[in-house]
Amino acid sequence: MAKAPDFQTWTGLVRARVEEALVRALPAAGIAPERLHAAMRYATLEGGKRVRPLLAFAAGELAAAAPERLDVVAASIELIHAYSLAHDDLPCMDDDALRRGKPSVHVEFDQATALLAGDALQSLAFQLLSDTRLSESVEAQLEMVNTLAHAAGSRGMAGGQAADLASTGKTLALPELEFMHIHKTGALIRAAVALGASCGNLDAGERERLDRYGKCVGLAFQVVDDLLDAEASTATLGKTAGKDAKQGKSTYVSVLGAARAKAFAEELRADCRAALSPFGERAIRLKELADFIVLRKF
Amino acid sequence: MAKAPDFQTWTGLVRARVEEALVRALPAAGIAPERLHAAMRYATLEGGKRVRPLLAFAAGELAAAAPERLDVVAASIELIHAYSLAHDDLPCMDDDALRRGKPSVHVEFDQATALLAGDALQSLAFQLLSDTRLSESVEAQLEMVNTLAHAAGSRGMAGGQAADLASTGKTLALPELEFMHIHKTGALIRAAVALGASCGNLDAGERERLDRYGKCVGLAFQVVDDLLDAEASTATLGKTAGKDAKQGKSTYVSVLGAARAKAFAEELRADCRAALSPFGERAIRLKELADFIVLRKF
Repeated sequence: MAKAPDFQTWTGLVRARVEEALVRALPAAGIAPERLHAAMRYATLEGGKRVRPLLAFAAGELAAAAPERLDVVAASIELIHAYSLAHDDLPCMDDDALRRGKPSVHVEFDQATALLAGDALQSLAFQLLSDTRLSESVEAQLEMVNTLAHAAGSRGMAGGQAADLASTGKTLALPELEFMHIHKTGALIRAAVALGASCGNLDAGERERLDRYGKCVGLAFQVVDDLLDAEASTATLGKTAGKDAKQGKSTYVSVLGAARAKAFAEELRADCRAALSPFGERAIRLKELADFIVLRKF
Repeated sequence: MAKAPDFQTWTGLVRARVEEALVRALPAAGIAPERLHAAMRYATLEGGKRVRPLLAFAAGELAAAAPERLDVVAASIELIHAYSLAHDDLPCMDDDALRRGKPSVHVEFDQATALLAGDALQSLAFQLLSDTRLSESVEAQLEMVNTLAHAAGSRGMAGGQAADLASTGKTLALPELEFMHIHKTGALIRAAVALGASCGNLDAGERERLDRYGKCVGLAFQVVDDLLDAEASTATLGKTAGKDAKQGKSTYVSVLGAARAKAFAEELRADCRAALSPFGERAIRLKELADFIVLRKF
C-alpha cells in the first residue's frame, strides 16, 4: 500500500477535487441568465480555505466513502457557505466590500445580482444533494437533505446570523455568544462532518462520536476566527480585519480576552482529539484538521 | 358518497388546511431567534391567494394522494413563494413597500431581517420536504426535492427574476418575454402540480399530461398578472398596481397589447383543458383552477 500523503498534500488534492466538483455543479457562464450564472461562479470558485469540504472528506474517508460521493456532498455544503457570504456582505447586512481577497459579489456585480446569486446557490445545493445516489440507502440520503436544510435554516446558520445582527452594539454574556456562534458557523461545519460520514458506513455510536467532534471543531473555528479578526491584518485574511470591534460586536476576544479565548480554543482542540481517540489512525485527517483550524494564521 | 363541494367551498377548505400546515411548519414566534421567526411567519401566514397550494392539492387529489402529504408539499412550495416575495420587495430589487395589502417584510421589520427570513424560508421548504414520508417510494421523494430545487434555482424562479431585472427598461421580443415568465412564475407553478401528483399514484403518461397542464397554467397565470397590473387598482390587488409600466418592464400587455394578451390567456386556458380531457371528472379541480386563474380579478 502506498504511503498516505502528508496533510498539506492531502488538503491540496481535496481542494482541487472540490474545485472541479464545483465547476461541474455550477451552470456554465454561457447559459442564460448569464450574469446570474457568472455571479454564482464568482461567489463560489477560486477562493476560500474550503474548510467545510475538507471536513466532509476527512469524515467520509474515515467512513470509507466513495470519493465521488464526497465531491458532491462537499460541493453542496460549500455552495451553502458561498451563498451565506454573498448575502452577509450586502450593504443591509455586514456591508463588506472585500471577500477572499477580491471585491464582494455585490461590488463586482450589483446588489440584486448578489441577492439572487445567493438564493440560487442555496437551491443548487439541494439540487446537487438529490441529483445522484450518495448513500447506501435512499432513506439516509433524504436524511442528508434534512440535515443540510436544518443546518442552513433559522435554527442553524441563518438563525445564527440573525442573532449576530441582533447583538451588534450589545455586550453578550458567554452563553448568548456561544448560542450565536454554534448556530452561525457551527451548524454548517457540524453538518459537513455528518454528511461526509453519511456517504460511507458507520454505526450509530461512531456517528455520535463524530458529531461530538463536529460540534467542538465548529466552535473552535469561530473562536479562532474572532482571534484572527482582532489580531491579523486585512491582507493576511483576505477580508476586512478588525471588523468585529468596529461594529461593536461581542466576540470571544471581547468577552473573554485574547488569552482566555486562546486557552478555550486549545480546550476545544483537546475535546476534538478525545472524541476521535477511539478511531485511532483512521481519524488522522480529522485530527490534523482540528490542529489546522486552531493553529491557522488566516 | 357525499356530493363534492363546489369550487369556492373547496378552495376555502384547502386554504384553511394549508394555513394550518404552515403554522405547524414555521417555528413559533417564541423560539429564538424570535425576530427572525416573527418575520418568517409574517412573510408567510394570513395572506395570498395560495394558488400554488391549490394546484398541488388539485393535482394530488387527482392522483388519490393522502391529504396529510399534500399539506406538507403545499406548505413547502408556499414557503419558497413567500421567500421570493420577501426578497423581490427589497429596495435593491423591486423596492415595493406593499404586499398582500400589508407593509412588505423589510418595511415591517428591516432589510437584513427580510433577507434572512427569505433565506431561512427557503431552507425550511427543503427541510419540510425531507422530514416525513411523502411518496410511495423514497426515490420518488428524493426526486421531489430535486424538482423543487430545480424550480427554485437559477434555471427556474431565481433565473426568471434575474432575467426580469436584466430586461427592465428594454423592450423584449415575445420569445424573451416568454423565457422570463416561464422561469419567474411558471417554474414554481409547474412544480406545484408535479409535486402534488408525486404524493399519489399516476403512470408516466398521466404525469406528462399533468406537466403539460402545469406549463400552460403557469404561463396563463403570468399573462393575467400582467393584465391585472395594467388594469386593476392597488386596493384590489393588495400590491402596487401599474408597477410594470412605471418600471419600464416588458409585459404581455406592453408587447402584445391588452386585447391580444387576453386572447393568449384564453388560448392557454383551452390548452389546459385539452391536457386534462383524458382525466374526465377526476380533473375537475384543475380545470376549475385554470378558469379561476384566467378569469380572476385580483
